[in-house]
This record gives sequence, C-alpha cells and structure tokens, in this order.
Amino acid sequence: MTNYGRPAGEILARIRAHRPVVHSITNYVVMNSTANVLLAMGASPIMAHAREEMEDIAAISNALVINIGTLSEQWIESMRVACGLAIVRGKPIVLDPVGSGATRLRTETACELLKTSRPSLVRGNPSEILSLSPEGGSTRGVDAIHTVDQAVYAARQIARTFATVVAVTGERDVVTDGNRSLIISGGNRLMGCVTGTGCAASVICAAFLAEEKDAVTAAAAGLAFYKLVAERAAAEATAPGTFWVKALDALYTITPHDLETQARIAEE
Amino acid sequence: MTNYGRPAGEILARIRAHRPVVHSITNYVVMNSTANVLLAMGASPIMAHAREEMEDIAAISNALVINIGTLSEQWIESMRVACGLAIVRGKPIVLDPVGSGATRLRTETACELLKTSRPSLVRGNPSEILSLSPEGGSTRGVDAIHTVDQAVYAARQIARTFATVVAVTGERDVVTDGNRSLIISGGNRLMGCVTGTGCAASVICAAFLAEEKDAVTAAAAGLAFYKLVAERAAAEATAPGTFWVKALDALYTITPHDLETQARIAEE
Amino acid sequence: MTNYGRPAGEILARIRAHRPVVHSITNYVVMNSTANVLLAMGASPIMAHAREEMEDIAAISNALVINIGTLSEQWIESMRVACGLAIVRGKPIVLDPVGSGATRLRTETACELLKTSRPSLVRGNPSEILSLSPEGGSTRGVDAIHTVDQAVYAARQIARTFATVVAVTGERDVVTDGNRSLIISGGNRLMGCVTGTGCAASVICAAFLAEEKDAVTAAAAGLAFYKLVAERAAAEATAPGTFWVKALDALYTITPHDLETQARIAEE
Repeated sequence: MTNYGRPAGEILARIRAHRPVVHSITNYVVMNSTANVLLAMGASPIMAHAREEMEDIAAISNALVINIGTLSEQWIESMRVACGLAIVRGKPIVLDPVGSGATRLRTETACELLKTSRPSLVRGNPSEILSLSPEGGSTRGVDAIHTVDQAVYAARQIARTFATVVAVTGERDVVTDGNRSLIISGGNRLMGCVTGTGCAASVICAAFLAEEKDAVTAAAAGLAFYKLVAERAAAEATAPGTFWVKALDALYTITPHDLETQARIAEE
Repeated sequence: MTNYGRPAGEILARIRAHRPVVHSITNYVVMNSTANVLLAMGASPIMAHAREEMEDIAAISNALVINIGTLSEQWIESMRVACGLAIVRGKPIVLDPVGSGATRLRTETACELLKTSRPSLVRGNPSEILSLSPEGGSTRGVDAIHTVDQAVYAARQIARTFATVVAVTGERDVVTDGNRSLIISGGNRLMGCVTGTGCAASVICAAFLAEEKDAVTAAAAGLAFYKLVAERAAAEATAPGTFWVKALDALYTITPHDLETQARIAEE
Repeated sequence: MTNYGRPAGEILARIRAHRPVVHSITNYVVMNSTANVLLAMGASPIMAHAREEMEDIAAISNALVINIGTLSEQWIESMRVACGLAIVRGKPIVLDPVGSGATRLRTETACELLKTSRPSLVRGNPSEILSLSPEGGSTRGVDAIHTVDQAVYAARQIARTFATVVAVTGERDVVTDGNRSLIISGGNRLMGCVTGTGCAASVICAAFLAEEKDAVTAAAAGLAFYKLVAERAAAEATAPGTFWVKALDALYTITPHDLETQARIAEE
C-alpha cells in the first residue's frame, strides 16, 4: 500500500522553500481570508481581476484559482482570459464552483469554465459537484444539503468527461480522476461555522499543485494538510472565532514532518 | 409586564434549528465579517450582487439585507431588483443606511429604498436615522455625532410615515414601530472599535426576522442577543482584536436559555 | 540629537483626541483589516469609491489613502477625482503603490498618480519603490525580492523629483524627503505572514499625517508606532493568526507615553 504521507510532506517542504505565487480571481467575501491562508502556509497570494493586467499576472504566477462566489459579467470575462493564459503557460488551474446549483448564473458559469478552462482540479462541496454532473437534472441546491457519498459518482463522471481531477470536500474528502480515488479523513466540523473555509481548501490545493504535477497526489496532500490544520485548531478552540485564529496559526506551524506522519489519505 | 426574554430565546432556538438563509447585498468592508457572524450564530449567509442571479437567490432566501456601505450605481440597481423580489415573496427586508447623512448619494439611496422597498426593519446609528427623517434638514452628519436619545423622535416618525420598524443602536438600542417602543440595554463600548459591528447588528436582526414575523419583537430579540454577545466577549478581552474573536465565539456559544434569562429588553 | 520619540507620542495623543477621518480608496483584500487598524488606533475610517460621492467624502475627511491593490478602470477614475479634491482642500494624500512593478497597469497607474496627485507620502516595499524610480528599467518585480537598502537611492530620487516624502518599509523602514532621512527599527517578521500589513502601514501614516504637517516626522512616527505594535504582538504570539489579533489589541493599548519612550527613530 502506498504511503501518501511522504509525498504530502515533501510537497509542503517545496512550498515552504519556493513560495509559489497563487493568483486568485475570487469572491469579495474571502479575498482577505484566503490571502491569509496562503501567506500563513508559506505561499504567496496575488489577487487581481482587471483584464488589462491578466497577462502580466500570469507571467509571474505558478497557479491560478477561479472562484465564482460573487460573480459579475466583467469578472467572468477576466476569468476566461486568465484561464486562457494559464493554459498557454501550462500553469495549473483550480476551479471552485461556489454556489453552483444555487443560481443559473453560477451553474452556467461553472459549467462553461469546466469545459473551456481545462482545470487541473475542480473542488466543491457535494451540492456544487452534483450541479456540474453531465447528467444534470434535479440534483441542484445550496450548500450542505447533500453528503459527500452522494456526490462521488458524479465526481468520477465529471473527472472522466472533462479529463480533470475532482475533489468533493465535507465530512471526509474524496479526490478522483475518474479511475483512481483517494479518501482523506480527519478535520473538524467547526470548519462549517467559518466563512470561506471551502475557498481556503481550493487555494491550499492550488499551492500544492504549483509544486506537484500529479493532481490527485497534490490535491489529496493539500486536503490532508488542511484536515490536520482543522484538528490542530480544534484542539485549542471550542467556537468559530478562536478556531479560525488557531487554524491560521496551524497553517504556519505544521511541518512537513507532521504532515508526512499524520496525513490520513487512503485508497478507496 | 411582558417577558421579552422568552420569545427572544425561542426565536434563537428556531434559528439554530432552521438555519435561515440571509441574502446580503452589502459593502465590501464587512462581507467577510457579517458572513462569519451569521454562520457563528447558526444562520446561513449568501452574498450576491449580480442582477442576473437576484431571482434565483430570492427563491432560496429567508431574509434580505440591503447595506449601502460602499455604493455604486450597478449595485443600487441590484438592490432595487432584490427588494422588488423580496416584496413579491413576502420575505423580510432589513435596510442598513450606512453613512446616510454623510454623502448625498447615500442619503438619497437610503431614502429611495426606504420609500420603495417597504423594509420590515431599518437599523442605523443615531446620525443615520436622523438623516432619514421626513423633516430632513440640518441633522446630517457622520457616525457617532448624535446620541440615541436625539434620534428617537425621528425614529418614531420614520416608522409611522413608512409603516416600518426602526432600530436606533448605540450605547443602548431603541426599537419602535412609531407607537410601541422597546429599549435594549447592555453591550460594551469595544463594539465601537471594530469595523462592521453595526452591519453585524443588521444581519443578526435579519436572521431573527426570518423566524419571527413581528418585527418589533424580532429586532429587539436580535439586538438583545447581540448585546449579550458583546458582554460575553468583553468579559474575556480588553482590546478590539481579542474582543471580536471572542464575540464570534459568543455568537456560537450563547444558548436560547442564556438569551431567555439574560436579555435586557424593556418597554419605554 | 533630536528626540523623535516625543513628537511621535504627541501625534498619537492628538489622533486619540481628534479621531481624524481617513478616507481610503483601497483594494478589496484589505478593506476590512485596514478599517479595523484605523478604529483600533483611534482614528475613523471611511471606505468609498463611487465617483458621485467623492466630493462629499472629501469634505468630511482629514486624509486620503490611495491604494492600487485591486485596480479597475472605474476605480482609477475615482482615485483621480479624490486626489484632485484633496489637493484643493490641502488634505494629505498617501499613495500606496501595491504591486507596482508586477504589472504595467499598476506601474503606470502608480506613476501617473505620483506625478499628478502630489502625495504627501508614498509608502511601499522595496520592489514597489524601485518600480517608481525615474530611472525605471529592470528593477521591476513582485513583493520581497529586494531589500530596503537596495531601494533607498531610488526613494531619495523619487522624493526629490516629485517633491514628496517616500517611505520604504521592510526589515527596517526608511523615510526620506530626498535630503533628510530617518531610519525606523524594530518590528517583527511575522508581519510578512499576514496580508495587508503593508497597506496597514499606509493608513497608519495617513492618520499621523492628518495630525502633523511635516510628512517626514509624521511618517516616521507612524511607522515607529507600527513597529512597536509588531513587537507587542510578537511577545504574545508565535504564528500569524494570533499575531494579527494581538496586533489589533496593541494598536489600541499602546499609549502616547509608550510610543514616546520606545520609538526607535534615528537619523541616517
């Protein structure tokens, strides 16, 4: 049986050494918190949305995160341009379809970007992933109304159809390329009481992808790191205010060795 | 004499059970902090401003908050659309006239929305409420230059004129429908040293309104809950950074029973 | 030898007494955190970007901060208008050229505003300051790739060319008007692990400028205050989450006397 902890720890060590630049076009709600997540873990965030600077930003970025949490037409256009540039440069793209399934604008934008931007990774909660299923249909809804298990079939389909990797995150996380699937355990349910914690998972995965080409390995490593962060934080907190402060601390203090020895990644 | 603690505790219990969805069109400064307030207290935040998705968002929301803290023309148009949809669906609207009185754009926008959107509740600081008075005139200014007492007469007038409920918040809070008025005591002055604490009061009231039709009762209950949050936080903090972290904790840990027994709501 | 601690403490005392209003047109990432910095230290933040309200905001502001961290064309236009109004009213302007050097849009916007807005102070990290050098050239890059020492020559040139004061901040800070230069020591490297800490330095300087016309004295005092904040926070924290909470606390608890006796400002 493969030891998935070892590569996870090694990728984290490379992030700390190289400080990869992660460009996010993301929603207003989480810009501050996801920038802090990236800085605390040792990566370097850039937030930029003006179409005029997408080319220059692409030239200095090591990964791109597209998060559709607070959309508007101008921003969608910049997302398209940024994805095109990342494809040309071979930089990994993480698509976070926030609220896909809740409104047509979001579902259509997420589906369009899924088709055209060739993301290395799509990370969402179960409802968001279900809304992207090629079978479509009645599975649309808002956050937290489906379980991870309910979305695993859709995740595999999406991964195969679009030649991507899909991560469904929740009480446990599943990462799949349609054939191979990994399960990441751990975490803490206080994550659900803080805004932007899903978005944070996406930027963490982007930093891991910047340092590891194999998207299944990278995403599983990033999510295992984040589960460990949640556990560390929960050991010092019983409510969401303190929990998030301690989570930011843990992003900084968890070592590659900690991750190597404590990551809980298993084959399905 | 009515015991206002009992219904307050009951409404909080319903929020925790139902997790009402609160849609905010709000300012950039407080999007993250008010989303965290709603999550910590047990409600479910949605932030969205694109006109194209207002209809879908309205369909899944239980209350709407309109906060004019960082205005621009496009956002005002989305506010109008969202209010129209909430009216049709009979969903409560909370209007937070941030900075009304400080600039004409804000005063005019707040007055227009007050007239056309039929809010269930208008919540503001004394200067903001004074700026909305039908008598208008020279009472305009920025934050904290008037006392709650100075604004109570205007609050009653506004409530009667526009058939709404007005909450003036500050060193103590007054909630009035123009005839009946309740006074909420408690809190802590460190609230004034953290940004978005007024905006947080508005989203808390929106969650309470989602679970209680009587707007005077709902707003008084929400504000009493928030005063208690401030007191709990201040018991563990002497400065604003720690204070806000502990406030987020208190939003999560205060029980319906705590609120029932400790709410300080009195008739005027 | 001049004692720079005394005026620093006196300016802080005036800020606490007068609560100067600092208007920021700033990036989405730091709106919340810089508003909290200003409130915690005793100043009064206003965030507004709509062109229609620039005139009214200018009338009630004591200083203006222009921060180009998340640009778009509309916002640049509002920046121009706000600068014009501040010039007419004689209010100090602080220009924070976030990411200048990283993209042409940012470098050109920063250079244009430097030429036309006559800022009292330009504050940036070494790479940002180098990108504004009249000699231009190959010194362009992203955050943290140059040292403060490498940027001091450019800072002096910029100050002389544009009759402004330049602050280069980093492991130590240098404030110069092209002739006279002050060096501010202290601080803590955890500042580099939290987003918006450079932007926070700029709004702190703006509050100090609102109360002290001499821009070298004001900027040095503000930066010395901020170095002390970092030291206080680091005394209670070993990781960035807790560090920033404690920094907000320190902004509130450090007294004018503390600053007078502990500021570390020296002539070059």
